[in-house]
Amino acid sequence: MNTAHRPRIVVVGGGFGGLAAIKELKGVAADITLIDRRNHHLFQPLLYQVATTSLAPAEIAWPIRQLVHKRPEVTTLLGEVVGVDREANIVRLRNGTQVPFDYLILGTGAQHAYFGHDDWEPYAPGLKTLEDATAMRRRLLIAFEKAEIETDPEARKALLTFAIIGGGATGVELAGAIIELARITLRQDFRNIKPEDARVILIEAGPRVLANFKPEMSAYAERALRELGVEVELGQAVTAVNADSVEFGGTSLKAGTIIWAAGVLASPAAKWLGVEADRAGRIKVMPDLSVPGLPHIFAIGDTVTIVNGNGKPVPGIGDAAKQGGRHAAKVVKARLRGDTAEMPFHYHHLGDIATIGRSRALIDFGWLQLTGWIGWWTWGLAHIYFLIGMKNRIFIALNWLWIYLTGYRSARLITEPHSDEVSAAPAAGSGSAGTADTRRPDSKAA
Amino acid sequence: MNTAHRPRIVVVGGGFGGLAAIKELKGVAADITLIDRRNHHLFQPLLYQVATTSLAPAEIAWPIRQLVHKRPEVTTLLGEVVGVDREANIVRLRNGTQVPFDYLILGTGAQHAYFGHDDWEPYAPGLKTLEDATAMRRRLLIAFEKAEIETDPEARKALLTFAIIGGGATGVELAGAIIELARITLRQDFRNIKPEDARVILIEAGPRVLANFKPEMSAYAERALRELGVEVELGQAVTAVNADSVEFGGTSLKAGTIIWAAGVLASPAAKWLGVEADRAGRIKVMPDLSVPGLPHIFAIGDTVTIVNGNGKPVPGIGDAAKQGGRHAAKVVKARLRGDTAEMPFHYHHLGDIATIGRSRALIDFGWLQLTGWIGWWTWGLAHIYFLIGMKNRIFIALNWLWIYLTGYRSARLITEPHSDEVSAAPAAGSGSAGTADTRRPDSKAA
Repeated sequence: MNTAHRPRIVVVGGGFGGLAAIKELKGVAADITLIDRRNHHLFQPLLYQVATTSLAPAEIAWPIRQLVHKRPEVTTLLGEVVGVDREANIVRLRNGTQVPFDYLILGTGAQHAYFGHDDWEPYAPGLKTLEDATAMRRRLLIAFEKAEIETDPEARKALLTFAIIGGGATGVELAGAIIELARITLRQDFRNIKPEDARVILIEAGPRVLANFKPEMSAYAERALRELGVEVELGQAVTAVNADSVEFGGTSLKAGTIIWAAGVLASPAAKWLGVEADRAGRIKVMPDLSVPGLPHIFAIGDTVTIVNGNGKPVPGIGDAAKQGGRHAAKVVKARLRGDTAEMPFHYHHLGDIATIGRSRALIDFGWLQLTGWIGWWTWGLAHIYFLIGMKNRIFIALNWLWIYLTGYRSARLITEPHSDEVSAAPAAGSGSAGTADTRRPDSKAA
Repeated sequence: MNTAHRPRIVVVGGGFGGLAAIKELKGVAADITLIDRRNHHLFQPLLYQVATTSLAPAEIAWPIRQLVHKRPEVTTLLGEVVGVDREANIVRLRNGTQVPFDYLILGTGAQHAYFGHDDWEPYAPGLKTLEDATAMRRRLLIAFEKAEIETDPEARKALLTFAIIGGGATGVELAGAIIELARITLRQDFRNIKPEDARVILIEAGPRVLANFKPEMSAYAERALRELGVEVELGQAVTAVNADSVEFGGTSLKAGTIIWAAGVLASPAAKWLGVEADRAGRIKVMPDLSVPGLPHIFAIGDTVTIVNGNGKPVPGIGDAAKQGGRHAAKVVKARLRGDTAEMPFHYHHLGDIATIGRSRALIDFGWLQLTGWIGWWTWGLAHIYFLIGMKNRIFIALNWLWIYLTGYRSARLITEPHSDEVSAAPAAGSGSAGTADTRRPDSKAA
């Protein structure tokens, strides 16, 4: 594309994909605008550790502005995209701002989805943002608080029952962390309840957990979960989710806390562009990651569906988004210098990785499988390596070492109004988190 | 007091005072209940550092349950006190729970107050809780984001104007931290604005800042603030606070962010008991810290007003609450063993301490004054010493060292819905923080 002005590249989404694209674009003679509706990049693989009180939000999130502040050609915009004008080449933000582009890269990710059961959402929240994580942390901690003051044994039992729907990596990692929170971290903290009596039930519709791993790794994960005390229910499709119960296999399980880790839906990028999407909302991109009919617009990561050279779909993981971002940026750079060669995307799968509790993990590099504590240490080192910035690496490493040695998780904060939630007539899973009156209460500390 | 049952001591408030009382009560043959409406103890002296993005909430807050979990005689209750039945000796919680006591210690603190100007609160929020701090952090960061997309120079200037009402320790420390956030931390992060153009105005009605310090220390603080770039307005009573301006000295200052650091009001403990209170709602306790006419009920810390032996009022600082908590516990222990001797409280003032930015502080021990970087290092070491737990000490020390060396503050997170706040028609200081729809937005990260 030839333009009279300096070329304008717009990247939407400061996740793994968008940031990788920005990095790859370094040195290109163009004005770059990075748009995100959050002011921070989030390291999603560790989000479950915020939800389960091991890490603080600031430890897995970075101000996007700071990540690109040494790149004067990059302007960061905090704003929510509501549409793309594919004729005029303009990105429209909710506040009315119009951002023109010559090339556009969309890495707007996915959110959890209930596929026809949106009424389940208030009872079974999912985990995609920092707010989701602090709300889940609050729910988990409040469940123990409610149980402590509950006098009816049946109600108390229900409050100490945690049901997780979905046996993928998020479900498995949450299950392991919640049972350890109950059995190790909170062990001595209550007088009327025994936190170690808490039940954690992982419900998976398919025949095994971690379906994208090799069968023997799934079997290891299931065994490790059961050894920790998690009840694993396989081949059980959930048929109903209510305020205080979840139904599957013809029975109803009373559970004070229900967590959704089962499905995701792509961001509405396909709608913005008016192009075809699959059932999960993902754009069916061309081999070079451009959007069909729009060779100057690219989509990457969880926003798209694409089949790799080997005939297998590219998985919805952070590394695929990174590779996609890098590839889209390379195509843009080629087009800017007049190179119109076909450049199909080839995804290289590095491996699968998941952790169960604080001493077990499983890693499948294809040529090497690691489990047990070797897997756990490798998992930890790999995650620390992929974090951004030395400070967060040091802090998370120290945090994990601390939890590993003492079992204590320090981020056990209930930080939203909660008096309703521990009242005598609790509305379990009422979805009221954050919507209540937020006037500050009387402070109790001097 | 002789009772047929094992004596019951109830402590309300897990702040400095309440926890000191619990500690002092160790070994006493009694059942102790600790009630707080928050699940965490908050180290309030560093709350301004959460508000100004230096520290994460979990670094200055501790789960109360964990702090007392090795004391089997102590039961922790998460609940909000709504009244005290002084005839039946029962504490009533909002959820209907009734907690009987033989001895009661109230350390329920204070909240910020607007003294007849409650309509100012939405425009000039104060700082007492973790939620206040994360909301203030959000407001500060959003102000820069709004300014970045604002095209009108006057409006942009207003957005980069930060007015702090009240020149006590909180106001002084906030002013120093905000100007450094703008001039050092955010220096390179924006393209359309220069964060270092931000104005920080500290407005104090009295003739000097830090009025409880010696005059020469106040003068030093004022000079240090001015050297950092803070505009200090002394002898200026604020006459009006609006959504986007503050009036004092006959003029109106356009300010996108206005912060209240001017007044506090005691918790409603006096109302619960139906006893006399001063204008700030504080109970006028007896010399032994018991409530007049109720020798088995004690009140401590910011909930009370009491004159020390030297004729000066005991200040509303953490150490006074701690000493009060210890004293009340000692009186309870004496009464339990049948000792009815008079036990007047003597407050021992250790010193005054405040910090201005990341390299200046002032400390007045009476026999020794420290300022400059010696003061700053002493301030830092003193605060680390008073923190609870080795992990937080290590983490905060590392954090401060990091900020000291690099200028970067890592907790720069905007963690509530904000799309309204950066819209084209911003309602500056609309007080909407946290009351907006909290459904998760589309996730942008892969």
